[in-house]
Amino acid sequence: MAFQGKKLINDPNDVVTEFIEGLVETYPGLQYLDGFPEVKVVLRADVSSAAYDKVAIISGGGSGHEPAHAGYVGEGMLTAAICGDVFASPPVDSILAGIRAVTGSMGCLLIVKNYTGDRLNFGLAAEQAKSEGYKVETVIVGDDCALPPPRGIAGRRGLAGTILVHKVAGAAAAAGLSLADVAAEAKCASEMVGTMGVALSVCTLPGQVTSDRLGPGKMELGLGIHGEPGAAMADIQPVDVVVSHVLNQILSPETNYVPITRGNRVVLMINGLGATPIMELMIASGKAVPKLQLEHGLAVDRVYTGSFMTSLDMAGFSISIMKADETILQRLDAATKAPYWPVGVDGNHPPAKIPVPMPPSRSTKSDESLSRPPQLNQQGHILEVAIEAAANAIINLRDSLNEWDSKVGDGDCGSTMYRGATAILEDIKNYPLNDAAETVNEIGSSIRRIMGGTSGIIYNIFCKAAYAQLKASSQPVVTAKQWAEALEASITAISKYGGASAGYRTLLDALIPASAMLKERLNAGDGPCVAFVLSSEAALAGAESTKHMQAQAGRSTYVSGEILASVPDPGAMAAASWYRAAALAVEDKFGASS
Amino acid sequence: MAFQGKKLINDPNDVVTEFIEGLVETYPGLQYLDGFPEVKVVLRADVSSAAYDKVAIISGGGSGHEPAHAGYVGEGMLTAAICGDVFASPPVDSILAGIRAVTGSMGCLLIVKNYTGDRLNFGLAAEQAKSEGYKVETVIVGDDCALPPPRGIAGRRGLAGTILVHKVAGAAAAAGLSLADVAAEAKCASEMVGTMGVALSVCTLPGQVTSDRLGPGKMELGLGIHGEPGAAMADIQPVDVVVSHVLNQILSPETNYVPITRGNRVVLMINGLGATPIMELMIASGKAVPKLQLEHGLAVDRVYTGSFMTSLDMAGFSISIMKADETILQRLDAATKAPYWPVGVDGNHPPAKIPVPMPPSRSTKSDESLSRPPQLNQQGHILEVAIEAAANAIINLRDSLNEWDSKVGDGDCGSTMYRGATAILEDIKNYPLNDAAETVNEIGSSIRRIMGGTSGIIYNIFCKAAYAQLKASSQPVVTAKQWAEALEASITAISKYGGASAGYRTLLDALIPASAMLKERLNAGDGPCVAFVLSSEAALAGAESTKHMQAQAGRSTYVSGEILASVPDPGAMAAASWYRAAALAVEDKFGASS
Repeated sequence: MAFQGKKLINDPNDVVTEFIEGLVETYPGLQYLDGFPEVKVVLRADVSSAAYDKVAIISGGGSGHEPAHAGYVGEGMLTAAICGDVFASPPVDSILAGIRAVTGSMGCLLIVKNYTGDRLNFGLAAEQAKSEGYKVETVIVGDDCALPPPRGIAGRRGLAGTILVHKVAGAAAAAGLSLADVAAEAKCASEMVGTMGVALSVCTLPGQVTSDRLGPGKMELGLGIHGEPGAAMADIQPVDVVVSHVLNQILSPETNYVPITRGNRVVLMINGLGATPIMELMIASGKAVPKLQLEHGLAVDRVYTGSFMTSLDMAGFSISIMKADETILQRLDAATKAPYWPVGVDGNHPPAKIPVPMPPSRSTKSDESLSRPPQLNQQGHILEVAIEAAANAIINLRDSLNEWDSKVGDGDCGSTMYRGATAILEDIKNYPLNDAAETVNEIGSSIRRIMGGTSGIIYNIFCKAAYAQLKASSQPVVTAKQWAEALEASITAISKYGGASAGYRTLLDALIPASAMLKERLNAGDGPCVAFVLSSEAALAGAESTKHMQAQAGRSTYVSGEILASVPDPGAMAAASWYRAAALAVEDKFGASS
Repeated sequence: MAFQGKKLINDPNDVVTEFIEGLVETYPGLQYLDGFPEVKVVLRADVSSAAYDKVAIISGGGSGHEPAHAGYVGEGMLTAAICGDVFASPPVDSILAGIRAVTGSMGCLLIVKNYTGDRLNFGLAAEQAKSEGYKVETVIVGDDCALPPPRGIAGRRGLAGTILVHKVAGAAAAAGLSLADVAAEAKCASEMVGTMGVALSVCTLPGQVTSDRLGPGKMELGLGIHGEPGAAMADIQPVDVVVSHVLNQILSPETNYVPITRGNRVVLMINGLGATPIMELMIASGKAVPKLQLEHGLAVDRVYTGSFMTSLDMAGFSISIMKADETILQRLDAATKAPYWPVGVDGNHPPAKIPVPMPPSRSTKSDESLSRPPQLNQQGHILEVAIEAAANAIINLRDSLNEWDSKVGDGDCGSTMYRGATAILEDIKNYPLNDAAETVNEIGSSIRRIMGGTSGIIYNIFCKAAYAQLKASSQPVVTAKQWAEALEASITAISKYGGASAGYRTLLDALIPASAMLKERLNAGDGPCVAFVLSSEAALAGAESTKHMQAQAGRSTYVSGEILASVPDPGAMAAASWYRAAALAVEDKFGASS
C-alpha cells in the first residue's frame, strides 16, 4: 500500500529554501544569506561578524528536522544555523559562509550532530576557517541510547538532546564566556544527555512514496530521525508501558550511557517527531515525570514538551534525559529570543491541582422554600395543574416526536423530552409550588438532572432566565403580565445562546408567536385564561408552520427541503404541545375564577 | 483500508485528564481544579478569584484542539480554560467551577466558539453565574469562511481566529480595562477575522478507526476542526495554488466575510491542524505574505505560523486573516506568559536576506606561488614523481576497489577514487611543485573539485591538515621529519572529524601503521627513502588486516562479519596502494640520491 506521500508543498527540491522564506517572514529577528539554492544559512538579524563581541554558536545539518536548527537562532541560543537539503549534510561552502557571516574576535563554536557527513563537512569548514584566521571549536553530540554501546561511533546518533546542548552553549556565550569555556560547557552538557525514540509511522521524503515498513498496530523503538529502521519493532502498547521501557533503556546501569544515578537531578524533554499531536506528547510527559521520581529516584527540575527536533512527518516521540546541576539549570533557564525554545517552563512547581471552588451557599433560601408547602394556595394549585398537564402531553406525544425527528434529526427528540417530563412528574411532589419563581427553577433542575443534549440545556436556560425574571419581582403572587415577561426573557436567552431566531425551524417558532399573542391579548384587556389559550393556539400554528421552513440551526440544516416539507420541527411541536396542554388544563379547572 | 488509529495514549477515555496532567508538569505557571474526571479546568497558578483585580478571560470547549485552549492560559491571555472531552462541549458544572475559581470583582468574559453545544453550555453557566452575583459577558466567535453566508449560524464555525480574539481580550484585561471595554474589544476583534482550512487527512478519535474518506492524492477544502467533511474535495495541488484559493475565498468581496479591503493592514495566521510539519506551515507562510501584499494590496504586519488550534492528528492547515489597527497590534504584541502564544513575531522586518560574505582575499599568496614554476628543483621532481605514481596506482586499482566495495558498501569506492586521481593528473601541470605545502593544498582543491561523498571530504581534510602543518615551517625545503609530522596531523584531523580510530576498518588502518613506522625508522636513523618504503609496507599490511576487523564506522557497520572477513576495507586498500606506489617510485628514481 505504498503511495505518493501527501504534502502541502510546491517543488520537492525547493522545500528548504521555501521553508526559510516563511521562517523569516514569521520572525523579524531572523535573516538569511542571499545564496539560494546552495547556501542556506539562517542568522540573527542583529549580529554582524565584524562587530560581534560574543562567541558565535553555529549548528546545522540536514533539513527535515524543523524547527531544528533554524528555529533556535536568536539571542541566547544559536547565532546561525546552516541548513542542508532534506536529510543531507550542508556543503562546506555553506558552513564557511555561515562562519564568516557571524564570527567575530571571540571565535565560534560548531555544534555538530554525530553523523559522518555532518562531522566531515563541518570539520573541513572548521579547518578552512582556521586557516583563514578564525578561532573555531567543535563539539560533537551523540545522545542516542538505542543501540548497544560496543557498536562504535556509528551507533550514537545526534538526536533531540542536541537542542539542550544548543541552549547551554548559547546561554554561556551570551554570558560573555571565552570560546574555550563555552566549548567546555557544551561538551560537558553533551555528555550528560541521553535520548531514545519511538515511532508509529515512517517519515515520507518530499516527492517520494510513503514506506509501508510499519504496518497497522506496530511501533518501532530506538529509531533515528532520518527514517532509518529502529532497533526493534513491537506491537503498539499503552504509552505508559512505552515510556517505562524507554526510560529504563536510557538510564540502564549496564550500558551506562549517561552518568545519572539515583538521587540526581535531571531535566526531561519529550520531543515530537513531526506529526505527533501535543495531546499525546503531554500524556507522555505526565507519565514520565512520576516514573522518573518514584521508580528511578530522580528529581525532575524541568520538563520540555513539544516538537523540537523532528523527522518530517513521522508520528512518535523521543525522550531525552539530561543530568542537571545549578550551572546547567541556569543556562537552560536563561532568557533567549530563539523562537522555538519553550517559554514558561522555568521556576518551581506549585501544587498541580487545587480544590474545585464551592458554589456560594444558599443562605438566602430556607429549606422550607425549597420543598412542597403543607397547603397549596390558589397559585400553587394552578401551577400544579399546568405542570402535570404539560408533562403528560409530552409523555403522550413521545412516539410522534420520535417519528418526526427520525426524518429530520437523530430520532430521539420524543425520548429525550419524555425523560424530562417523567422526571418533572416524579419531582413535583417536592416543588415549592406556592413560590412560582422557585418552582420554575426547580423544573429546570429536574430537567438538568435527567435530560442530556441540546434540548436539555435549552430548557434549562429557559427556566433559569424565567426564574431570574420572576425573582426580580419580590411579590409572592405572580401576575399574568409578569408571566408574559418571564416568557419573553426566556426566549431572549435561548435565542442569544442558542443562536436561533424566528424562522430558523426551532422551538422558537412556537414560543415567539405565543409570547407575542400573550402580550397582545393581555394589553388588549383579555383575562389571563383567555389570553393563555389564544396564545397557545398561536404556538401550535407557529409549530405547524415550521414545515415550510428551511432549517438554519442544528442537525436539520443538513436535510433536504423536500423531506423537511413533510414534517414539522419536532422541537417546535413539543413546545407548542406542552404549552397548549397547560393552557387548556388551566382554563378547564380555573377558567371561571381567574 | 479503515484500521484502528495508531496513537501513543493509554485509555482513550483518559486522554484529556492525562493531557492536563502533562501540561501542568511542563508549565509550572498552570494548575488544574481537582475535579477529574468531570471537572477539567486549567487555570493560572497565580490567580485566586477572591483577590483577582482584573477581568478574568475564560474560554474552552471540546478537547482535541491542543494547545487550544489550555495552552493559552497565562498572564496576558486566558485566566482559565474549560476542557470538555474530545470534541464534546464541557458540562455546565465545569464551566461554573472555572468561573468561580478565577472571577473577581471585575467580572469575567467568556469567549465561546460558535458551536451549539458550546454556546448553550457556556450560556447556561453564564446565566447561573449571574444569578450567583458574578458579572459575566459572552463573546461568540464564528470566523469560518468556508460555507456560503446564507447558510445561517450553523455555517460559521469558530476556528483558529479564536486564538487571536483570546489574545486581544487577554491583553485588554491585563491593561486593566473594565468588563464592558474588554468585551467590546473582543467582539470587535471577532468581527475582523476570517479563517478557512484545507486538509490532507481526516483526524482519528482516540480508540476509533481511521476514516478512509480522503483517498490518496486528495485534499479537502473548507473543513472544520472536528473531522466533519469539508465544503469541497479536490486533487492535491501545489501549496502555492492552495494558498491562493484560500486567500481569495476569505477575502472575497462577494461574501464579504471580513471587512478587509485593499490598502488595509492585516495579520496572518497559518495554523497547523495537528500533524502538519513546521516545514510545510512555513512554506505556506512564505507564499501567503507576498500574495497578500501584491495580489490583494494588503500590508502584512504580523505573521503567526504554528499549530495553534488543531484537530487531533489531522494533516493540513487553516489560514486566518485579521484586519489590524494600532489597538489590535498593541494587544497582539503585548507580553504574555501563555506558553503557546508565539514569541519573537513582533517588531519591524529588516531585509529578509543579506549578501553571502566574501572569503578573505588571498593577498599573502602571489600568483607565482600557485602555478607550476618554470624550473623544478629536486623536491619538485620528487613530488611530481610521487604524485603521478600515486594517482596511477589508484587508476589501475579502480575495478578491484569497486568489487570489494560492492560487497561491503555501495560499490563506488573505485570510481570515486578514480575521479580524484584523474583530476590530480589533469591539474598537476599547474601545481607549484617547488612549494610542498601549497602543492598539498592544491591536491586538496583538485579532490574537492571532483570527488563527492565522504571520501572526497576525508581526503580534503587530509590535505588541509597537512598543509597547515607544513606551512608552520617557513623553510622552502621540507625535511623527512616534517613530512612525517604532516602525516600525523592529517591522521589526527581525519580521526577527529571522521570519528574513527585504529581498528575501525577504515583508511586509518593503513595510515596509522604507516605513520608509526615512518616515525620509528626515521628516529632509528634510516634514510628517508628506506623509511618511506618500510612505512608503505606497514600501510599495506595494515590494509590487509582490515579483513579481520568488525566495521565501526560508515556503511559497513550494517554488513555481517562473515562477508567482511572475505574482503579488505576498500578505503584502506586505496590509501595503502597510493602510498606504496609513491614510495616505490621515489625509491626507484631517487633512492640513491636522497
